[in-house]
Amino acid sequence: MTKKFNDGMKEMRKHFGKVADSWIESIREISPEFAKVNVEFPFGELYTRSVLDDKTRELCTIAALTVQGFSIAELKVHTVGALNCGASRDEILEVVTQMLAYCGFPAATNALKAVNEVFVDLDKK
Amino acid sequence: MTKKFNDGMKEMRKHFGKVADSWIESIREISPEFAKVNVEFPFGELYTRSVLDDKTRELCTIAALTVQGFSIAELKVHTVGALNCGASRDEILEVVTQMLAYCGFPAATNALKAVNEVFVDLDKK
Amino acid sequence: MTKKFNDGMKEMRKHFGKVADSWIESIREISPEFAKVNVEFPFGELYTRSVLDDKTRELCTIAALTVQGFSIAELKVHTVGALNCGASRDEILEVVTQMLAYCGFPAATNALKAVNEVFVDLDKK
Amino acid sequence: MTKKFNDGMKEMRKHFGKVADSWIESIREISPEFAKVNVEFPFGELYTRSVLDDKTRELCTIAALTVQGFSIAELKVHTVGALNCGASRDEILEVVTQMLAYCGFPAATNALKAVNEVFVDLDKK
Amino acid sequence: MTKKFNDGMKEMRKHFGKVADSWIESIREISPEFAKVNVEFPFGELYTRSVLDDKTRELCTIAALTVQGFSIAELKVHTVGALNCGASRDEILEVVTQMLAYCGFPAATNALKAVNEVFVDLDKK
Amino acid sequence: MTKKFNDGMKEMRKHFGKVADSWIESIREISPEFAKVNVEFPFGELYTRSVLDDKTRELCTIAALTVQGFSIAELKVHTVGALNCGASRDEILEVVTQMLAYCGFPAATNALKAVNEVFVDLDKK
Repeated sequence: MTKKFNDGMKEMRKHFGKVADSWIESIREISPEFAKVNVEFPFGELYTRSVLDDKTRELCTIAALTVQGFSIAELKVHTVGALNCGASRDEILEVVTQMLAYCGFPAATNALKAVNEVFVDLDKK
Repeated sequence: MTKKFNDGMKEMRKHFGKVADSWIESIREISPEFAKVNVEFPFGELYTRSVLDDKTRELCTIAALTVQGFSIAELKVHTVGALNCGASRDEILEVVTQMLAYCGFPAATNALKAVNEVFVDLDKK
Repeated sequence: MTKKFNDGMKEMRKHFGKVADSWIESIREISPEFAKVNVEFPFGELYTRSVLDDKTRELCTIAALTVQGFSIAELKVHTVGALNCGASRDEILEVVTQMLAYCGFPAATNALKAVNEVFVDLDKK
Repeated sequence: MTKKFNDGMKEMRKHFGKVADSWIESIREISPEFAKVNVEFPFGELYTRSVLDDKTRELCTIAALTVQGFSIAELKVHTVGALNCGASRDEILEVVTQMLAYCGFPAATNALKAVNEVFVDLDKK
Repeated sequence: MTKKFNDGMKEMRKHFGKVADSWIESIREISPEFAKVNVEFPFGELYTRSVLDDKTRELCTIAALTVQGFSIAELKVHTVGALNCGASRDEILEVVTQMLAYCGFPAATNALKAVNEVFVDLDKK
Repeated sequence: MTKKFNDGMKEMRKHFGKVADSWIESIREISPEFAKVNVEFPFGELYTRSVLDDKTRELCTIAALTVQGFSIAELKVHTVGALNCGASRDEILEVVTQMLAYCGFPAATNALKAVNEVFVDLDKK
C-alpha cells in the first residue's frame, strides 16, 4: 500500500468509522484499482488538506450528492460522515432543504428519504 | 410586495450586495412571477432560517452549482455571496476542488473558471 | 398553517386525491419545514395560477420528470395527478415516448416502467 | 430521401417554419447521418402521431429542455415551435416557471433567459 | 414489422442474445410504439452502420451509461452486450474506472456495482 | 513535482500535444492543487494503465462528455486527443451520433457542434 492509501484510509475512518473499511472492501472485491483510487484520491489527497474543516466538507458533499438525485448510496455514507464530523441531524436536513432552490423537489426528496433512513437505522442501534 | 418578498430582498442584499437588485430586476422584466418566487422562496424562506450560518450555506450552494456543470451564472453570483458572507477565495476554490470526487473534471473545471472570472473582475475594481 | 399552505393542500388533493396527504405526512415526519414548502411553493403558488390548465401542467411535469431519469417516486405521483386531471393513459405514455428525443432510451425507459407500475396498481383496485 | 424524412421535414416546418431547414442544413454539413435521424426520428416518427396535439407536445418539450439546464439552442428553437403551434408567450413562461419545482432556479433561469432572447429577437423583426 | 425493425432485432440479438427479445417484449406490453422505436432507431439504424466495430460501440455505451448515474437497467444489458461483442470483464471495469475522471465516484460506483451484479449472475449459470 | 505528475504530463502530451501544457497552465494559475490532481489522477493514474488502448479510451471519453451536455471545453480537448490517438473524424462523429440513443438530441447536438469546431480549427492550420 502507498503512503497516500494509508493516509486516505485513516481519513476515511475519521469520517465514517468502520463503514470506511466495509465500503472499500466491497469495492476491492470487484476492482482493486477502483478501490485504490477511491481511497487515495478523495481521502488521501483532497480531504486531508487543511483549508476547510471536516464538518464543512461533509455538508458541502451532502449538498452535492443531494442535487445529483441518483447518488443515494454515497449520500447515506456521507450522512454518517457528517454526523461523525460534528454536524447535527438538523443541519444535515437543512442543507438538503436548502438544495430545493438548486435542484427542485424530486432530487431533494430522494435525498431527504435517504438521509432519514440513516437516522432511523442509527436509532435502532 | 409581501413581507416575505421584503425579507427575501433584505437577505439577498446581505449576500450579494447591489447585485441582488440588478439580478432580480433583469428577471422581473421577463417574468414578474418568476422574480417574485426567486426572492420569496430561497431568500425569504430557506436562507433566513437560523440552523446554518450564511457562510456554510454559500459554500454548500457552491458545491451544488459546481456538480451541476451548467449553473454558471448562478455560480458567479454565489461566488460573490460566499465572499460577502466571510468565505476566503481559497475556501471557495477548495470546495470546487473537493467536488472533483463527486462530479469529475468537466463540471469542476467549468466551475473553477467561472469562479476565477469573478475573482478577476473583483481585482479590476 | 398559512393560507398558502391550505390553498396548496387543496390544490394537491385536486391533483393526487388522498395521496396528497400521505405524501406530505411522510415528509413532515422527517422535516416539517420541507413539508411546508413542498405544499406552499409548487402547489400554493405555482400550480394555482390560471395561465395553464391542470392537465397541461401535469403532462409538462411528466415530461420533466422523465428526462431527469432519477425522479421515479415523483413521476408515479404525477402519473396519478395526470390521470386525475383528465389525461388518458395513452397521452401519458405518449409524453414519455416523445421524451426519447430529448433524453434517450435509459431515462425514458425508467419512466415508462414507473408509469406502468402505477397503471398496474390502479387495475388491481 | 426516405418517405419518413420527407414527412419529418414537413412536420418540422409546421413547427419551426424556415428555421427547420437552416437547423438541419447546419447539421448535415457536419454529419449527414445525424441530420437524417434528426428529421426522421423525432419529427417523421414521434411528432406525427395524433395522440397529442402540437401545442401540448411543444410545451412538454419546453418543460424537458428547461430542466436539463444545458439545452439552450434546442430550447430557443422549440420556443419558436411553441409559438407557431399556438402557445402564447405567457404560457411558455409559465411552463418554465413551473419547472422551478422540478429543477430549481439555475436551470430554470438559464431557460427563462433563453426563451426571452427569442421573444426579443421576434420583436425586432 | 418493417425491414428496419427486423434488422434491428437481428442486431439486438447479436449484442444481447435472448435478452433482446425479453427486453423488447416487456416494453411492448406497455407501449408498442416505444418498443418499435427502441428496436428501429438505435439498433436498426445507428448500430448497424459499419464505421465502428461492435465492441467499441458497446464500450462507448458503457462509458455513457456510467456517467449518467441512473441508467442502471440499461447498463446491465449493455454489460452483457459488451461481453458478447468481445470485451473482457477487465475492459468493462476499466471503462467504468476511467469514467471516475468525468463523473466522480457516486455515478461510477453505481455503475461498478451494476456491472458486477451481471458478472455474479453469469457465474451462477 | 511527483513522479506521478511527470508520468501524467507525459501521458497528456501523448494525447493532446502542446494543448496539454497550455490547458494545465491555465488551471494552475487559478489553483495549483486542482492542476496537480488534474494531471496526476486521470493521466498519471487511470490513462497509463494498459488494459485499454488509447484510442478506445478517447472514444469512451467522447461518449461520456457527449451525454453530459455541458462538458464542451473538455470535449474539444478530447476531440484533439482522439485524433492524436488514431481515431478518424468519422469515428468521432459516429460515437457522438450513437449517443443520440442515450442522451437524446440536445446534448448530442451540443457535442456535434463542439467537435466540428475543432475540425474547422484544424483545417485552418
